[in-house]
Amino acid sequence: MSNPLPPALRAALDAAIEQARKSWDEGGIPIGSALVDAKGTIVSLGHNRRVQKGSGILHAEMDCMHNAGRRRDWSRMTLVSTLSPCPMCTGMALLYRIPRVVIGENKTFVGAEDWMRHKGVEIIYANDDTCVELMERMKRERASLWNEDIGIDD
Amino acid sequence: MSNPLPPALRAALDAAIEQARKSWDEGGIPIGSALVDAKGTIVSLGHNRRVQKGSGILHAEMDCMHNAGRRRDWSRMTLVSTLSPCPMCTGMALLYRIPRVVIGENKTFVGAEDWMRHKGVEIIYANDDTCVELMERMKRERASLWNEDIGIDD
Repeated sequence: MSNPLPPALRAALDAAIEQARKSWDEGGIPIGSALVDAKGTIVSLGHNRRVQKGSGILHAEMDCMHNAGRRRDWSRMTLVSTLSPCPMCTGMALLYRIPRVVIGENKTFVGAEDWMRHKGVEIIYANDDTCVELMERMKRERASLWNEDIGIDD
Repeated sequence: MSNPLPPALRAALDAAIEQARKSWDEGGIPIGSALVDAKGTIVSLGHNRRVQKGSGILHAEMDCMHNAGRRRDWSRMTLVSTLSPCPMCTGMALLYRIPRVVIGENKTFVGAEDWMRHKGVEIIYANDDTCVELMERMKRERASLWNEDIGIDD
């Protein structure tokens, strides 16, 4: 069962899930992300675009950061992702001193949570069933693409 | 005095320096990068495009990875950067299991070298004077932009 979230973060995770679905429908990887400011407003959304843009850097969280453009208020934001952030996306959050990360699920993949924790980032686990379902289908139906996305040469 | 490098890596660092100069001339941040395959061939180049593309994710190393497109041979590559890679770029190298990183200089900025080392990445320090000069001018003449690039809200 999913963990309850504060309403603004639940809304952001729902928006990230919509991004993930969009990516899947485009033939891509179903991971979505949102950045939320201190007032709870979503400032940007993004989704994995490896397939769509032929890029190894456009994980959902990176796409979301790209879409946010040039700002300097990262240290008051929350990064929301449908999946546990990989080392690249974790490093991005650490570079920008983002203090809080919402993880939709970490049942199908565990990213660099240890590095985040070591650096004092607050992690909120949503344990969201929909996020799990999206990734389970991904790993079942597009397994090689998933390996590519996490740097495994299958 | 700069440390000597094997010829293929010296050529790659020189190409990265040219990328850095290009970025400076465009009004941007003078950091460049190259990816080199197992045969010593440069497979992609990139430079910081924060200013040029209005993006927080386009550090030199990320731009270089983006330009390399979709490949699966990262674990046999060397990532070359004119500057010590920040946490985001370090995380990217770790995600893709890049085993070796050449650092042009780490006198003006030290990135997440400790994490790279912890994860077993081989680091080669070029201690290159030109790389240092490029960054010293950056920090002197475009200080606020540099702070933005490393996530400091000045």
